[in-house]
Amino acid sequence: MSKLPNVTTSIFTVMSKMAAEYNAINLSQGFPNFPVDERLTDIIARLSKENVHQYTPMAGFPPLMNQIAKLVQSSYNRTIVPETEILVTAGATQGIFTTILALIKTGDEVVILDPSYDSYESPVLLCNAKPVRVALNDDYTPNWETIEKACSSKTKMIIINNPHNPTGKILTEADFLQLEKLLSKFPDILVLSDEVYEYITFEEKHISAHTKDFLLNRCIMVSSFGKSFHITGWKIGYTVAPEYLMKEIKKVHQFLVFSVNSISQAAISEYLDVVDVNLLGKFYQEKRDYFQKLLQNSRFELKPCEGTYFQVASYANISNDDDVTFCKKLITDHGVAAIPISTFYSDHKDQKLIRFCFAKDDFTLESAAKKLCNI
Amino acid sequence: MSKLPNVTTSIFTVMSKMAAEYNAINLSQGFPNFPVDERLTDIIARLSKENVHQYTPMAGFPPLMNQIAKLVQSSYNRTIVPETEILVTAGATQGIFTTILALIKTGDEVVILDPSYDSYESPVLLCNAKPVRVALNDDYTPNWETIEKACSSKTKMIIINNPHNPTGKILTEADFLQLEKLLSKFPDILVLSDEVYEYITFEEKHISAHTKDFLLNRCIMVSSFGKSFHITGWKIGYTVAPEYLMKEIKKVHQFLVFSVNSISQAAISEYLDVVDVNLLGKFYQEKRDYFQKLLQNSRFELKPCEGTYFQVASYANISNDDDVTFCKKLITDHGVAAIPISTFYSDHKDQKLIRFCFAKDDFTLESAAKKLCNI
Ligand SMILES: CSCCC(=O)C(=O)O
Ligand SMILES: CSCCC(=O)C(=O)O
Repeated sequence: MSKLPNVTTSIFTVMSKMAAEYNAINLSQGFPNFPVDERLTDIIARLSKENVHQYTPMAGFPPLMNQIAKLVQSSYNRTIVPETEILVTAGATQGIFTTILALIKTGDEVVILDPSYDSYESPVLLCNAKPVRVALNDDYTPNWETIEKACSSKTKMIIINNPHNPTGKILTEADFLQLEKLLSKFPDILVLSDEVYEYITFEEKHISAHTKDFLLNRCIMVSSFGKSFHITGWKIGYTVAPEYLMKEIKKVHQFLVFSVNSISQAAISEYLDVVDVNLLGKFYQEKRDYFQKLLQNSRFELKPCEGTYFQVASYANISNDDDVTFCKKLITDHGVAAIPISTFYSDHKDQKLIRFCFAKDDFTLESAAKKLCNI
Repeated sequence: MSKLPNVTTSIFTVMSKMAAEYNAINLSQGFPNFPVDERLTDIIARLSKENVHQYTPMAGFPPLMNQIAKLVQSSYNRTIVPETEILVTAGATQGIFTTILALIKTGDEVVILDPSYDSYESPVLLCNAKPVRVALNDDYTPNWETIEKACSSKTKMIIINNPHNPTGKILTEADFLQLEKLLSKFPDILVLSDEVYEYITFEEKHISAHTKDFLLNRCIMVSSFGKSFHITGWKIGYTVAPEYLMKEIKKVHQFLVFSVNSISQAAISEYLDVVDVNLLGKFYQEKRDYFQKLLQNSRFELKPCEGTYFQVASYANISNDDDVTFCKKLITDHGVAAIPISTFYSDHKDQKLIRFCFAKDDFTLESAAKKLCNI
């Protein structure tokens, strides 16, 4: 009877709720716990007294759309036309959902890598289309051979997530070469590039879909101010697509939300004049390094983390429990909340891996690490 | 190729844009142009300095959900359970879209009255379902006989909009009796009740679906703080449904937006402690009366307006143009923007009727009326 029979309460909801109940330190759901930049909160406090309370135009507040075009230009040297190629969305999630609803039809197939963030599959199912899951390699790099094997004339879209949640992996130039080769064989396949952590990369620089000429006419790029400005609650993101696709995406957007929160759009627009997104990578790299150092003497084995604010850790040395059970005990017995990695796999296979969010102030990271080192 | 081949730029976008271009007085798209209550802007300015910038729980900010339950209790004496029966949405539009996506399947039929606000049909089409349009009577009352004739075993939902945009009509006790009779014959039909103007009624009191026992277990009620608090840009609304339906609606919501703007939710939650929604009807009744008086000596013939902030007017005495042409000339030649009523009809039939939004400060209404009286 349900259109989404397999959907249960999101693990992010379950873990955050349980963390609150047990007064555990919440490193599960991905959100920062430090104060937002005062320059941004000053702007929104001032703007609330101005004329910013009615509908913005459907596709976004025009000054913000111009700022987004400037941001993409300065970050990636790509010129985009605000009026025809940008949509401001109620978070990246709405951008992803709207894109899929607009472009995927009954019977289409959509390639989704495995593991993946949980919001790609359901919109595909709601289109009566088929998610085709393709496993990443053991080191979480895409296996382009198996991806190609999964593609056929039915394939309408490949969804990539770069940097990758939950594994922290980023795509390389070699990956993009392989993707280019693959796409040259399938002229009808579109790419949905979820780059919400685009400014959160460390040793290696992020390679955006924006920089790849072969993608420009067939790629929908989704991003999030929530992640870049530590304001996950504001729910403001944006989608960039070539005009012929954006036209269809806007048609759905018009009936899905019509427009998005006006004050937040106006505030972010002003903030983009003063903030430097290029500092974000360094900021989170320090957090990652500090968190890794704090866990050095724990029994967790930390995986490499090239981007995002997530650290994957193996607890194989600690327990034989499956990861969901382990995460629950971690809350109840040790006072720290994390996310079981099996959640991100289509078959929910347990690999004794969990994900910590390190977008937290130092005190929180220290308190959590102390508990984790005692296990 | 398009999933929504008949969707073009929304008339609200077209007219608001044209109004701006020609510096016309904009009585087209429905939004207030007077300042927002200072108590509300004070709250949001203060809150912006507090810890309200990260994800709220998926279904809504818990204090706001409690306030909504209290509001429904005090307005309609209905007890609803916040945790299981309420969803906070990015505007009522998102509530409508999410409800339809969650509950309507391929091949289902959905009864939509004609004329209707434009956001019901497209989500139905995106579900591969069939919108079945049923004409209202000439006085804009529902024709329950033809509605019943349109119903069959395929019918999954009837959408009602009360008070009705664009006609300003409200449903009577007699209407609800007829609806009850009809539903008793079709046990599987759900009702989606769009009540975004619930607090904007005049001589007659609004009768909410909340007050009808026969609807409680089969009705989804959608409302909007944008309309009630003059903050259409904030995009915060809510949906109320019995738990078994809300469970499905939440599943879609989780992937469609996950959660909605946190600061706005927190601000509205506090504001609900001090605002009296029962003053809204009187406030807009005075605006309606004033606008009607100002147009008394014009050549427009004003239709009755029982609720909403829209006034329908006939220009049959003035011009033989179709209503879209008339509205364009109204902007270019007379400096006032309105909405052609044909927009709300499935067959776009011209009836020499246009819609004015009177949610404007007195000066704006006076300036517009002066121009309109000169025609
Ligand atoms: C929208 S809740 C999940 C937040 C997030 O991006 C994550 O924790 O992976
Ligand atoms: C979302 S734009 C339309 C606003 C409105 O409700 C109307 O003008 O009818």
